[in-house]
Amino acid sequence: MTDTAHPPRTPAENAELALLLEVSGTPKPGNVDREREYPDLRFEQFLAGAVGTRDGFRHAASGEPVGRAFERAVAGMSRQRGGNTQFGAVLLLTPLIGATAHDTGNADGGNQRARSVTPQRAQTVVDATTVDDTVAFYTAFEHVDVAVDDPPEELEALDVRHGGAAEPAIRERGLSLGELMEKSASVDGIAAEWTDGFPRTFEVADHLLDGDGPITDRASEAFLSQLAASVDTFVITQHDQSTATEVKNRAQEVLAGRETARELAADFVDRGINPGTTADIVAGGLFVALDRGLEV
Amino acid sequence: MTDTAHPPRTPAENAELALLLEVSGTPKPGNVDREREYPDLRFEQFLAGAVGTRDGFRHAASGEPVGRAFERAVAGMSRQRGGNTQFGAVLLLTPLIGATAHDTGNADGGNQRARSVTPQRAQTVVDATTVDDTVAFYTAFEHVDVAVDDPPEELEALDVRHGGAAEPAIRERGLSLGELMEKSASVDGIAAEWTDGFPRTFEVADHLLDGDGPITDRASEAFLSQLAASVDTFVITQHDQSTATEVKNRAQEVLAGRETARELAADFVDRGINPGTTADIVAGGLFVALDRGLEV
Repeated sequence: MTDTAHPPRTPAENAELALLLEVSGTPKPGNVDREREYPDLRFEQFLAGAVGTRDGFRHAASGEPVGRAFERAVAGMSRQRGGNTQFGAVLLLTPLIGATAHDTGNADGGNQRARSVTPQRAQTVVDATTVDDTVAFYTAFEHVDVAVDDPPEELEALDVRHGGAAEPAIRERGLSLGELMEKSASVDGIAAEWTDGFPRTFEVADHLLDGDGPITDRASEAFLSQLAASVDTFVITQHDQSTATEVKNRAQEVLAGRETARELAADFVDRGINPGTTADIVAGGLFVALDRGLEV
Repeated sequence: MTDTAHPPRTPAENAELALLLEVSGTPKPGNVDREREYPDLRFEQFLAGAVGTRDGFRHAASGEPVGRAFERAVAGMSRQRGGNTQFGAVLLLTPLIGATAHDTGNADGGNQRARSVTPQRAQTVVDATTVDDTVAFYTAFEHVDVAVDDPPEELEALDVRHGGAAEPAIRERGLSLGELMEKSASVDGIAAEWTDGFPRTFEVADHLLDGDGPITDRASEAFLSQLAASVDTFVITQHDQSTATEVKNRAQEVLAGRETARELAADFVDRGINPGTTADIVAGGLFVALDRGLEV
């Protein structure tokens, strides 16, 4: 019996695995995890969502434009009945995966690779986006219902809920996807990552790489620490600013040992509070950590 | 916002998802599930194992010979530190996936398809195996440590633990993989499925399709009902016949309401009893059910 060396996972495999590890981290107050689910949003739907993303991720790793690869991944994610399982995480992951692609493109779907993801390479992917990526981003909203706020009246034509029908308005303004994200950075945690060089994502990756024990436990710790550090913008969208502030404060109480994560999880589930943006950032961090050699 | 129809998952996606749903079913006495794991065999390693199988499954769906596709899937599965997570399930799944392939082959990896799996089609795949498939099957043992019994002395040259080095002995005897499985059918539950037209696999699929509620709950029920119906051959290999008989009897006690599944799970975990073959058959049943339209 020989001890055969195995080639590393591809970026697309790592990205799918990041989604699976993220949802398996427990406790993760307010979100679906392997011990908590909602009747209409189940753990198994996150599994199916993750499986469905891979084809889009493979295209991202091959150097396909970010918008189109993102739309592909979202279409695949949507082939389950839970609705929006991982839209934000996929939006965060796509440029990170794109950052691993060879400059020459990689027609076989990323099986050969020489680059690992860095903030600089991810920023280069963001900076290279065009208005076509913005159109594809809008089209992705046709695959799944995503909770979003109403835009200001003068931007009604750019409501993402128009999907691909917003194309004329998008082209008229000529915004690249990177520029669109920049405009949302103050109100959307994922857009802020796109705009600022993915600081929280890489912070989570460092936390995961420095830790030990089961990765899903490290992911749960990283989640709680991110939740205590920044307001979750998805909670603002679904509820309001004061709820988001309460969530952040309660996470700080857990870190200080004055409340348990399990109590907090039970309360958030009861109240339908889902800090989804924080979970998305943990998924991004898991991908970066796997890409940098985190062993499962 | 339009309601966009999504193409169905490919057979390879369904097979990976089957592995993920199987390990997520709980309680599943004695096996790793989303609430139980061993320090050296974790839930997250089953996730990584499942992600790693997909490329081999894609080749199986494209009509690649079963042995080679199986070896590919096992090599991918082995890229995690838990060791043998899903060897038996992959062995069961590969001919079932192959049964979905078009006769003409399908170079794009199964994205287009017209056939769903039936016992007859799976049997045709088994009957078409050659000695090359047997050699590839042996080579798969080089990727991972699999618990097996010592063969009888006169068959020492055919010990699977020789891996690809057994090739001359294999070729001398000229056994196809289907014929090899037939020889093991009386002592190995997966080989019995290969030999008898996959009866338990399709029985589980019917159970899953007839049920309602979360699929992982249905998978847990199917596991218990299979455990009560047949001795688990992996338990015989790891322990002995009397332990396997006890496992079956205890599962019957649970079905009769005289013991809870959770108590049984705790006891089996304490004693290192892992009815792995039964779990493999549930994974096969999940694939067939997904292929036949089970909605997640």
